[in-house]
Amino acid sequence: MNEYRMEHDSLGEILVPEDAYYGVQTLRARDNFHITGIPMAHYPRLIEALAYVKLAAADANASLGLLSEEKSRAIVRACEELVSGKLHDQFVVDIVQGGAGTSANMNANEVICNRALELMGFKLGDYDHLHPLNDVNMSQSTNDVFPSALNIALILDLRELMDAMRVLQKTFAAKGLEFADVLKMGRTQLQDAVPMTLGQEFTAWSVMIGEDVQRVDEAEDLVYEINMGATAIGTGLNAHPDYARTVTEKLIEVTTLNLTMSPDLVEATQDTGVYVQLSGVLKRVAVKLSKICNDLRLLSSGPRCGLNEINLPPMQPGSSIMPGKVNPVIPEVVNQVAFAVVGNDVTVSMASEAGQLELNVMEPVIGYSLFQSINMLRRGCLTLADKCVSGITANRERCRELVEHSIGLVTALNPHIGYEKSAEIAKEAMRTGGSVYQIVLDKGYLSKDELDDILKPENMIKPRYLRCSPDRVEKTALCEKEANS
Amino acid sequence: MNEYRMEHDSLGEILVPEDAYYGVQTLRARDNFHITGIPMAHYPRLIEALAYVKLAAADANASLGLLSEEKSRAIVRACEELVSGKLHDQFVVDIVQGGAGTSANMNANEVICNRALELMGFKLGDYDHLHPLNDVNMSQSTNDVFPSALNIALILDLRELMDAMRVLQKTFAAKGLEFADVLKMGRTQLQDAVPMTLGQEFTAWSVMIGEDVQRVDEAEDLVYEINMGATAIGTGLNAHPDYARTVTEKLIEVTTLNLTMSPDLVEATQDTGVYVQLSGVLKRVAVKLSKICNDLRLLSSGPRCGLNEINLPPMQPGSSIMPGKVNPVIPEVVNQVAFAVVGNDVTVSMASEAGQLELNVMEPVIGYSLFQSINMLRRGCLTLADKCVSGITANRERCRELVEHSIGLVTALNPHIGYEKSAEIAKEAMRTGGSVYQIVLDKGYLSKDELDDILKPENMIKPRYLRCSPDRVEKTALCEKEANS
Amino acid sequence: MNEYRMEHDSLGEILVPEDAYYGVQTLRARDNFHITGIPMAHYPRLIEALAYVKLAAADANASLGLLSEEKSRAIVRACEELVSGKLHDQFVVDIVQGGAGTSANMNANEVICNRALELMGFKLGDYDHLHPLNDVNMSQSTNDVFPSALNIALILDLRELMDAMRVLQKTFAAKGLEFADVLKMGRTQLQDAVPMTLGQEFTAWSVMIGEDVQRVDEAEDLVYEINMGATAIGTGLNAHPDYARTVTEKLIEVTTLNLTMSPDLVEATQDTGVYVQLSGVLKRVAVKLSKICNDLRLLSSGPRCGLNEINLPPMQPGSSIMPGKVNPVIPEVVNQVAFAVVGNDVTVSMASEAGQLELNVMEPVIGYSLFQSINMLRRGCLTLADKCVSGITANRERCRELVEHSIGLVTALNPHIGYEKSAEIAKEAMRTGGSVYQIVLDKGYLSKDELDDILKPENMIKPRYLRCSPDRVEKTALCEKEANS
Amino acid sequence: MNEYRMEHDSLGEILVPEDAYYGVQTLRARDNFHITGIPMAHYPRLIEALAYVKLAAADANASLGLLSEEKSRAIVRACEELVSGKLHDQFVVDIVQGGAGTSANMNANEVICNRALELMGFKLGDYDHLHPLNDVNMSQSTNDVFPSALNIALILDLRELMDAMRVLQKTFAAKGLEFADVLKMGRTQLQDAVPMTLGQEFTAWSVMIGEDVQRVDEAEDLVYEINMGATAIGTGLNAHPDYARTVTEKLIEVTTLNLTMSPDLVEATQDTGVYVQLSGVLKRVAVKLSKICNDLRLLSSGPRCGLNEINLPPMQPGSSIMPGKVNPVIPEVVNQVAFAVVGNDVTVSMASEAGQLELNVMEPVIGYSLFQSINMLRRGCLTLADKCVSGITANRERCRELVEHSIGLVTALNPHIGYEKSAEIAKEAMRTGGSVYQIVLDKGYLSKDELDDILKPENMIKPRYLRCSPDRVEKTALCEKEANS
Repeated sequence: MNEYRMEHDSLGEILVPEDAYYGVQTLRARDNFHITGIPMAHYPRLIEALAYVKLAAADANASLGLLSEEKSRAIVRACEELVSGKLHDQFVVDIVQGGAGTSANMNANEVICNRALELMGFKLGDYDHLHPLNDVNMSQSTNDVFPSALNIALILDLRELMDAMRVLQKTFAAKGLEFADVLKMGRTQLQDAVPMTLGQEFTAWSVMIGEDVQRVDEAEDLVYEINMGATAIGTGLNAHPDYARTVTEKLIEVTTLNLTMSPDLVEATQDTGVYVQLSGVLKRVAVKLSKICNDLRLLSSGPRCGLNEINLPPMQPGSSIMPGKVNPVIPEVVNQVAFAVVGNDVTVSMASEAGQLELNVMEPVIGYSLFQSINMLRRGCLTLADKCVSGITANRERCRELVEHSIGLVTALNPHIGYEKSAEIAKEAMRTGGSVYQIVLDKGYLSKDELDDILKPENMIKPRYLRCSPDRVEKTALCEKEANS
Repeated sequence: MNEYRMEHDSLGEILVPEDAYYGVQTLRARDNFHITGIPMAHYPRLIEALAYVKLAAADANASLGLLSEEKSRAIVRACEELVSGKLHDQFVVDIVQGGAGTSANMNANEVICNRALELMGFKLGDYDHLHPLNDVNMSQSTNDVFPSALNIALILDLRELMDAMRVLQKTFAAKGLEFADVLKMGRTQLQDAVPMTLGQEFTAWSVMIGEDVQRVDEAEDLVYEINMGATAIGTGLNAHPDYARTVTEKLIEVTTLNLTMSPDLVEATQDTGVYVQLSGVLKRVAVKLSKICNDLRLLSSGPRCGLNEINLPPMQPGSSIMPGKVNPVIPEVVNQVAFAVVGNDVTVSMASEAGQLELNVMEPVIGYSLFQSINMLRRGCLTLADKCVSGITANRERCRELVEHSIGLVTALNPHIGYEKSAEIAKEAMRTGGSVYQIVLDKGYLSKDELDDILKPENMIKPRYLRCSPDRVEKTALCEKEANS
Repeated sequence: MNEYRMEHDSLGEILVPEDAYYGVQTLRARDNFHITGIPMAHYPRLIEALAYVKLAAADANASLGLLSEEKSRAIVRACEELVSGKLHDQFVVDIVQGGAGTSANMNANEVICNRALELMGFKLGDYDHLHPLNDVNMSQSTNDVFPSALNIALILDLRELMDAMRVLQKTFAAKGLEFADVLKMGRTQLQDAVPMTLGQEFTAWSVMIGEDVQRVDEAEDLVYEINMGATAIGTGLNAHPDYARTVTEKLIEVTTLNLTMSPDLVEATQDTGVYVQLSGVLKRVAVKLSKICNDLRLLSSGPRCGLNEINLPPMQPGSSIMPGKVNPVIPEVVNQVAFAVVGNDVTVSMASEAGQLELNVMEPVIGYSLFQSINMLRRGCLTLADKCVSGITANRERCRELVEHSIGLVTALNPHIGYEKSAEIAKEAMRTGGSVYQIVLDKGYLSKDELDDILKPENMIKPRYLRCSPDRVEKTALCEKEANS
Repeated sequence: MNEYRMEHDSLGEILVPEDAYYGVQTLRARDNFHITGIPMAHYPRLIEALAYVKLAAADANASLGLLSEEKSRAIVRACEELVSGKLHDQFVVDIVQGGAGTSANMNANEVICNRALELMGFKLGDYDHLHPLNDVNMSQSTNDVFPSALNIALILDLRELMDAMRVLQKTFAAKGLEFADVLKMGRTQLQDAVPMTLGQEFTAWSVMIGEDVQRVDEAEDLVYEINMGATAIGTGLNAHPDYARTVTEKLIEVTTLNLTMSPDLVEATQDTGVYVQLSGVLKRVAVKLSKICNDLRLLSSGPRCGLNEINLPPMQPGSSIMPGKVNPVIPEVVNQVAFAVVGNDVTVSMASEAGQLELNVMEPVIGYSLFQSINMLRRGCLTLADKCVSGITANRERCRELVEHSIGLVTALNPHIGYEKSAEIAKEAMRTGGSVYQIVLDKGYLSKDELDDILKPENMIKPRYLRCSPDRVEKTALCEKEANS
């Protein structure tokens, strides 16, 4: 019984399991790299993207007369199967690997070659009829295949991330409308500032996420530039002069992505700036998500000894020792996602800095870090939207009480009685525990009518035409106009 | 003799040096913050920007009838003096400060107020005639003034950075032309790869820097959005409804920058995402500069025991113990700049994440880090261009010898004799120390003519129409066409 | 047919698969946290550690008369099964979770409780006879259980890391001996410096790793301090006064680790400094491993156009396009491990900074990052030792040629003819391409005998008694002594 | 009039200001490095340390008979002047520089040489009588001088940092005693947890800082290892065999620091692990300081809409628009210090990773970052102690009210009525707004006496012997003992 087939490469011969679609080089790489324990198979987008690249290359090579139609057709069909999700379990190499992705490329070459051989009616490993390098890898090098495939995979993942962000954005926006009439104190530096609505707060977060979608979208735009045709170092050695253009066009066709060809392939092959930029933007998203989660946790702190302005939906009992405690577990986990993304950004930066001369060999860990960041952010956004934000309720009474009781109201008196008198009132309120409203009345700085107008909630949450006040330094044209009207 | 004047604020009275343009709040802040030891005075752009903001605000307030023409004129004149570089020594507060920039804002308010008082014919400290808060700070809050000024200062600094980057870009481009005919080996993973020209290498770096200029430019675009009119938390409390628009327009006029008003001022006042993004792009620049410097140091390694393909201009004796040693000190210092910028990026990210609710109080350290990164990068680019790249010479003979001697040439044989035969030749060359050229001839795989054509340097540094070869798997249309021609 | 059992917690009822050992809270947590996709089950050390903690707590509670012997025995037996590797598949909660590890703790409580119930002859879910909270979690809180278990798991993992580091250390040391007589040029700033042996180079790396083992060992020492008995916030509420001491003693007994009780449990419960420190030390290891890998890649660069002083064992064909190319894939992947570890360190720092008041809720991502770093470093060290360093060979002739040809030799002339003359010789050698040796002779600065003695390789690789030379500024006692001898 | 003297080095001649103590190489370096704009003169510790090293080297060289007594005496006297603070303005080279510190070393060599020449009665620049390289730098290389001096300077700075940390530690400890009887709610995950005292909280911070002093102290221990005698690459070329030992002993004598000689000088000369470790520990300090500052800001949030448990001393008016607002500016600035330190740590890591072969050329930016971190932390600690912590007051009534009103009290009922009943009470309290105390009484779960005992504040802040309760699952021996007593 023969369960293995013999394969060889420039280092010698090796036994490959008879039914394996991968071959000698994949096997060597699998044994060489025990690093994360996570095989490429866990990154279906990357496998699809590699298949797209190989498909487009075969097609381009055929159309340039470099590869027979028969071979090309078989390769194309094998690639289509990979795109449809088949044979992913044959991608057994660790996602973090040496060799700038050569092993990932060879794993693809070998699986596609063997599946194509099978489709052509040959046995696995029968490379005389179709060769993983001479045919499947024709006109290619790892150094253009891997980054191009990485980019395509990133685009696909980024689109899902943006979808998730938009869900979160809309969830915040809906809450912004729902809470439009909940008056509350704004806080700066954790100190009571001036009034606003809870709706303004949630709307701001919606806007924040919305802006970040735009930033991710812009960063994604840069990822469309690929370097197919560069071959080893960007000079296009061994590629037909029309190949770069042809393969790019084909790739656009099959992926329906607006990919573009790098204007300088030498530069493109060594430059990983786009990944640093993308990672930086993902970090931006992370940092802001974390900030929002911090705020959600602050506003829901309590229930009795905290701010307690909002309630997060309880998702699980909070404590193994404190009965009835419900914790903000969803924002907490999103905070942690954010920290991981910031860490990944440093990894990407260092890996990018470590590129040397014509190539950056650290691309696998760059890809790994980016996939991790994108996927964790995506899951974090959806989790936050579904399991937290959408179920948030407001403690309206509590919010209003805090406003009415607050000293921050004096700020609104500023244009009417000046900064120094306002500060004096604030100090007295602090000292006596009294209310700003009463102290102003007692001192006679403003009439009750004036005061009621100034401190009317709806008058404090946006700019307004100032009423004239006797203490105002200058009688303004505006005041007079108002007075006349 | 009375050398002090008495000033007071809500915390009490304090003696201020009689001739100081700053006042009580500046003095308290100076004493509170002994952190970096670097006063605001070292950041002239920031002082100019604060002056622009105060000038525009005074003008807007006057045009809305909120401030008398006399006061406005005096404030405007004082601000103009600051813009022209005067009184900067009065900005004595540490650049890193608590309070979200309140002390920076108050330092500006006080200096402008006192200078304006002087211009109006009053004594310093005579705040009955013009008040730092009621008048100079009218319609404003630190929370819109400080980030708006920070943005303006950053724009001014970024423009200088881009100028410096363009100088470096052009210097590389010029060398790219100069070295267009220097054939050399390309290297991937520090291993001999395939030939290219030294010109391609330098041109790639020029393109790289050029792309980064674009990225910085795009990031700068985001910095134009300011939040003037937000006042304390973005609700615009105490601001006239037309103020935000008016002050922004005035600011555009005086700065000639295309500033825009944030569409959601609540969001804008708490969001520091733009700084994270900008810092991320600066990090991208840093990472790539560092990569280029690493390459320059590699290529100039030697003189006898390294790659020795290029010579960096000697800038200083290299060693206190090794006579005649000349070190790549300029790339080395630019590497260090890059590492500092990557570190600063982490600082910016953490500071941004630490924003809470309606404000990010950590903006001073964000500004400090960004100014540091921008300025160090600017100086690094200019230093690298002037003191290193422009003086680089090529060791043409050495470069050519390495190519001719190299094994990497076999790659060019790939399309003609297949991957496996090529690998076999490479191995034999390695084992015997022989040349690829001779071994191919000896084996009779290709004729001398074919070989000469394939290995002609100018044929290896770009894609080309392949000549037909007997071992080629498929006779292609292309080959036939060539054969006929 | 009933495939589910009904369980309830304070949020309501939920159906749990009938044969699941976990219960309602685990199920909620599993659904809440879809973040990394990696369940706790992938961290066997953590599950073992949780089992140790629960075992020790049950034992302590029994010995203090708080828990019946029967319950205690059942819990202990269930825990022992977990320690032996059973039921790990029941740990289904994502390793990154909100709630400070509450879900990890509850997963353990529920699995242990149900297995113990089974052992006691009851049905799964029959919590009247043994309760996950009242009994299994008795005297405990997540806030002491989770960090204590984390520490124990880290210790176990760190020991394996140190073992792997020692393997690498020894492998370098052995190569240091093997290469003790290979003379080569030392390089500083990538410029030729002065001679040394390849053995000194490899020995230095061995020493470097050896020092790092010590540093990891010291950092590990800090991890032994645990906070069992702290309960919710360190005040020990609901714990028997003797419990903290008793449970710690029991834990020492079952783990055979020299654990200690925190002297201030309030401090210990909120402080994650130990993780920051540990992560910092892991980063140190990473940075140095990366530096060594960079060096290995430099020294093996070539084969024809690089330094080519050593050969790394070929582990796989290097390129899909360049036949015969063999790449330093093992050092390359270890570099990537290092970058990931530096990134994780930032994650740990941010997570640690985010602790608030009596607890740090971000411990799960801290644990996740540390486990990742430790495991990747361990695999990296073993991979580097086994698949790279142990197979390195030296190109002795090449090394010697470079030395003899080098200009750096002039440094050795320094004490004999002074810095300036030495520099002049270096310059002339550079200009003419001549050898230092010949130029000195030609100039007559030193006799052939003197020169041969000075430049004898074995005289240049360590300090030595200087021979006297006529140009030496001071005739030293030493010289005279030598002259007389 | 001749205001310049002519000096030359291997690159040629240059005019040096006649009265400058520095010389040609310093001048070149000053012109080469315009990076931070901060000259070495701003780092007096580093200049002192360089002087110590040069002094010890001269002394060692003299005692080994390599340098005349006259020259040695002059060098020693010049160095002593530098140690005493003289001539620091002559250190004009940018602190961040290429060349691995060669310029710093040469700046020291030249200043010392010229001052010594002056002391010997010669003119500045008269290097025939004493030479900066042959004499002042005798037996030395930048590669041992610079890191050794850096270490000495770091030790001096670290001692001051530890002093500052101890001041902060004691300030927290004193407050811990002062607030020992202030009962308050502990919080985990920002949710009400269980009671504790404010004293426990402040004491925990004191302990936290105290632990960090120990960690800094341990890290400092590693800095004592120096590599004097290594010369260029650690082989000690050109150094007398007794020199390394002799110079180290002399250095110990003059600095009174317990310096040790590296056991492997080749390793020591290329290894910067000690700086990574030190930086990691500084980051630990930063992270914990930041956490404490976050807590101080949380606890003092309000005054009316926040936790408001403590009052920070008002240091300056808080807002330019909100009268009476007082902000936590001191903790805020210390947070910012922390973020800068974490950023610096990344810089140090990258710089350390970038070392190549026998040397790490990035040491200047490592030194720069470490000095910055240490000094900012020192100033931050002192500022926090003096201007914030020492003036903190407690709002005792507010703290107590929050406890009495809280739901977290139910935790204390856990051992008496079980987790599930406790949770039910908590839910009812939440729903009805009622107090835990009343609900328990109403339900009759416990008698008033029992309840009063359980909820007595002093019984909740530490472990205690439990009273027996009818619902307790097991009657414990302990209960019975208590019942009998």
